[in-house]
Amino acid sequence: MYVSDCIDINSQGHLTIGGCDTTHIAKEFGTPVYVMDEDEIRKNCRKFVESINEYYGGNGMALYASKAFCCKEICRIMAQEGMGLDVVSGGELFTATSVGFPAERIYFHGNNKTSAELKQAIDYGVGKIIVDNILELETLNELASAAGKKEKIIMRIKPGIDAHTHEFIKTGQIDSKFGFALETGEAMEGVLKAVSMPNIELVGLHCHIGSQIFDLDPFELAARVMLDFMAEIKQATGLELSELNLGGGFGIKYKKTDRPRPFKDYMKKVSEVINEYSKKLKLKTPSILVEPGRAIVGAAGLTLYTVGSVKSIPDVRTYISVDGGMGDNPRYILYQSNYEIICANRAAEKRSATVTVAGKFCESGDIIQEWTHVQPVKTGDILAVLSTGAYNYSMASHYNRIGRPPVVMVKGGEPRIIIRGDSYEDIIMNDI
Amino acid sequence: MYVSDCIDINSQGHLTIGGCDTTHIAKEFGTPVYVMDEDEIRKNCRKFVESINEYYGGNGMALYASKAFCCKEICRIMAQEGMGLDVVSGGELFTATSVGFPAERIYFHGNNKTSAELKQAIDYGVGKIIVDNILELETLNELASAAGKKEKIIMRIKPGIDAHTHEFIKTGQIDSKFGFALETGEAMEGVLKAVSMPNIELVGLHCHIGSQIFDLDPFELAARVMLDFMAEIKQATGLELSELNLGGGFGIKYKKTDRPRPFKDYMKKVSEVINEYSKKLKLKTPSILVEPGRAIVGAAGLTLYTVGSVKSIPDVRTYISVDGGMGDNPRYILYQSNYEIICANRAAEKRSATVTVAGKFCESGDIIQEWTHVQPVKTGDILAVLSTGAYNYSMASHYNRIGRPPVVMVKGGEPRIIIRGDSYEDIIMNDI
Repeated sequence: MYVSDCIDINSQGHLTIGGCDTTHIAKEFGTPVYVMDEDEIRKNCRKFVESINEYYGGNGMALYASKAFCCKEICRIMAQEGMGLDVVSGGELFTATSVGFPAERIYFHGNNKTSAELKQAIDYGVGKIIVDNILELETLNELASAAGKKEKIIMRIKPGIDAHTHEFIKTGQIDSKFGFALETGEAMEGVLKAVSMPNIELVGLHCHIGSQIFDLDPFELAARVMLDFMAEIKQATGLELSELNLGGGFGIKYKKTDRPRPFKDYMKKVSEVINEYSKKLKLKTPSILVEPGRAIVGAAGLTLYTVGSVKSIPDVRTYISVDGGMGDNPRYILYQSNYEIICANRAAEKRSATVTVAGKFCESGDIIQEWTHVQPVKTGDILAVLSTGAYNYSMASHYNRIGRPPVVMVKGGEPRIIIRGDSYEDIIMNDI
Repeated sequence: MYVSDCIDINSQGHLTIGGCDTTHIAKEFGTPVYVMDEDEIRKNCRKFVESINEYYGGNGMALYASKAFCCKEICRIMAQEGMGLDVVSGGELFTATSVGFPAERIYFHGNNKTSAELKQAIDYGVGKIIVDNILELETLNELASAAGKKEKIIMRIKPGIDAHTHEFIKTGQIDSKFGFALETGEAMEGVLKAVSMPNIELVGLHCHIGSQIFDLDPFELAARVMLDFMAEIKQATGLELSELNLGGGFGIKYKKTDRPRPFKDYMKKVSEVINEYSKKLKLKTPSILVEPGRAIVGAAGLTLYTVGSVKSIPDVRTYISVDGGMGDNPRYILYQSNYEIICANRAAEKRSATVTVAGKFCESGDIIQEWTHVQPVKTGDILAVLSTGAYNYSMASHYNRIGRPPVVMVKGGEPRIIIRGDSYEDIIMNDI
C-alpha cells in the first residue's frame, strides 16, 4: 500500500514506521524530525548481500554508498551487516574510522580528492582507492611511496552509457567530470600508467551509469563494456583484473507508481551476463561490487513536520506551511523530486485535498511538494513525507540559520536519537 | 573593470580584494576559503543610509537582510553602520542577540514562525514583527498578552506585482506562500483583525516583489499599490500607518554585463513617488524601510579554490575540478546562476580558455559554472569566483560530510578569520 514496507497505519488511524506511532515520535522529539527504521535498513542490506551469495556464489561485496546518509550509527550498522563502505570525502572516511569500520572494506571515491584525503586513506589502510584521473594516480603513487606502501586501486571508467535519468544525475556518459573516458583512449592510457607505477596495484574497474534507474538493460550493457575493456587490458598488459565494480543507481519507490526492479532480478541477470561473457572473453570471472545507497536507506526514512499556517488562495492553490523545508530537504528545489505525503494523525482518512506543502525558509522556491494529495489538514497536524532516508539529512544546510533536525532511529517499536538536532549554540559556534 | 570595486590586480599580476593579495590569503588560510572586504560592505551600507538621508530626509531605515549572510561579525558591522536587521528565524535572531544588536532595529520576518520563535522575539523586544498570516496574528496576540506586552507589527502584503526574475525567486505575485493577498480581501481582513487585537499595534505594511531586480518601475508601482492600501485602511479604520517597508531585491553585478541601477536612483524615484502620491491620497508620508541583503554583501565577497585535476574531453569540453563545489556554493545547481571566474595567480593574463568549473562533490550536477572564460590554468592554480558574498556561506551544507570553508574578512589590506571552517570533529559532533 505504501512506498515502503516499514510504513503502516495503527488502530488509532496513525501512521507508523517500524511499528512506532509517528505522532508519538513527533511529540517526544519535536518536529521537524527525520525518522528511520533500523530493521528496514538491515533488511535492505541483506537483500544485496544474499543476492550476491545466491546468484554469484558470494564472490563480491555490496558497498553502502554513504553519501546517501552518513553518520556513526549507520556506519556501525553497515559494519554489522557485512557491507562494505563507499566513502567520497575525508569527512565520510573520518566518520567511518571514528567507529572503527573495517579498513579493508572501505572504498574511497571522488573526482578531486585532495592530497590530505589520499594520505588519510593510506594511513587508515582503506581497501581500495577508486582513482578518477591521471593526476590522482600520480599523487597517490607518490604518497604511497612516501608511506612505504603499495596501494590497491580501482579505476573509474566512463563506459559511455547514459541511463536516461534526470539531467543532473546522469553520470555514465563521456561528458562527465567523473572518471577516465574509454572512447578517447584515456582509460587505456591510465591503465598503462597505473601498471607501470611501483606503488600502485591495479585490481579492478569501476563504472556508475546513473541514479534512480528502474531498468536492467543499462546495467547489463555496462557489464559487457567493462568486460570488453578488461579483455583489452589483459591483451595489452597481461594483467587480469579481479574486481568489477558496477556502481549504484538502483531505483527506489518515491511514489506508489514507481516500479523499481527487485535487486535479485538485477543480480541474477548481471551474474549471467558476467559469467557467460567473461567465459567467452577467456577471462576469470571477476568478483562483483555494487554500491547501493538510496536503495538501502531511502525508503527506510521519513520526515515529520507540524502544519503551521494554511493559506487557501481562491482559484490559485492552497499552501500548507510546515516547520521545516529546503534546509532539511532540498531535493524539490534542486530536482523537483516526487514524494508521497501523509497526514500522520489522519492517516486512515482519504487523501482528498490537493495542496502545495511549503517550508518556513525565506525563499519562494522553498517547497517540499506541489499539487500533492493529502488528507484535509489543520494547523497542528503532523505531516509525514515518505522516503526521505537518502539525500535529505546528508544534503541539509543551515540556510536561514535554521538548525538541521535530529535523526531518530526506530527498532522493535522503540525510538532513539542517532543524530542530535543542531542547537542555536551549534549554529554560531564557529562565528568569531 | 570587475564586477566589484574592491577587486583589482597588483603588480605581480595577482588578484586582490580590499588591497590584499588573494594568493597570499589562499596560502595562509588554505582553500576553499570565502573572502570578504569589510570596507566594501561598509561602503554599501552607507549608500543606503545616505540615500535615505539625501532623498527622504532620513525618514527611514535600511535593514540588512541577514539571510544573505549572517554571522556575528556581520551583525556587529551592521550595528555600527546604523543599519537595521531583517531576520527570518530564531537562529538569525540568536546570532544578532549574541552580539547585542539593538533590539528596536530588528525586524522579524517569516511565513511560518514557530511559537517558540515569536516568544524569543517578544522576549528580546525586537522592533517589529512582520506578520505573514492570520494564524501568526492570533498566536502573536496571545503570546504578547501572556508577556504583558503590546507588539508592534507590520503586515506582509502581496501587492500582485511580478518583477520578472527567475521563477524560483519571484515573490510579489498572488501565487506565493508569503503574505496577505490584496485582491482577495485577505489583507483587509488581516488589518481589521489586527486593529481589533488588544496586544497588537499595527504600524505599517511590507511588500517584497522579487530578487535581483534591475528595473525601477516595479518598485515604483509597488509603492503606489501600498499607498493605495494605506489610504483604504485609513478610510476603513481611521488608522494612519507610519511605516512603509518596500523590501529588497536590488540587483547586483554577477557578470560584467549586469547593469544594476545605483540605489540612489531608486531612492530618488521612490521618494518622489511616495511624497507626491501620499500627498494626493491625503496621507502623512510614511517612513520608508528597505531590505538590502545581496546588495550589501554579494559583490563584497569572493571564493578561492585550488585547481585539482584538469580533464579535457576532445570535442566535448574541459572540466576543471576545484576543491569545493555545491556544498559551499549551491547557486549554480539551484538556479544556474552566473559568476565571473578569474585565475588569481594569472589575473593579468587574458581569459582565453573556455571551461567548465566542477566541484569535488560526488554528484554530476556539482558545477560552479559552465562554458565560462578563464585564463588557461594548471593544477595548483588558484581560482577566484567573484560576487559570492551573498547566499553562499548562508546556503552551504555538509553534503558528502565536507566541512564549510572558513570566512576571512579583509580590512586595510589585513585578513582575519570571522567564521572558522568546520573541522571533521565539528561534522560528527552530533552523531551518537
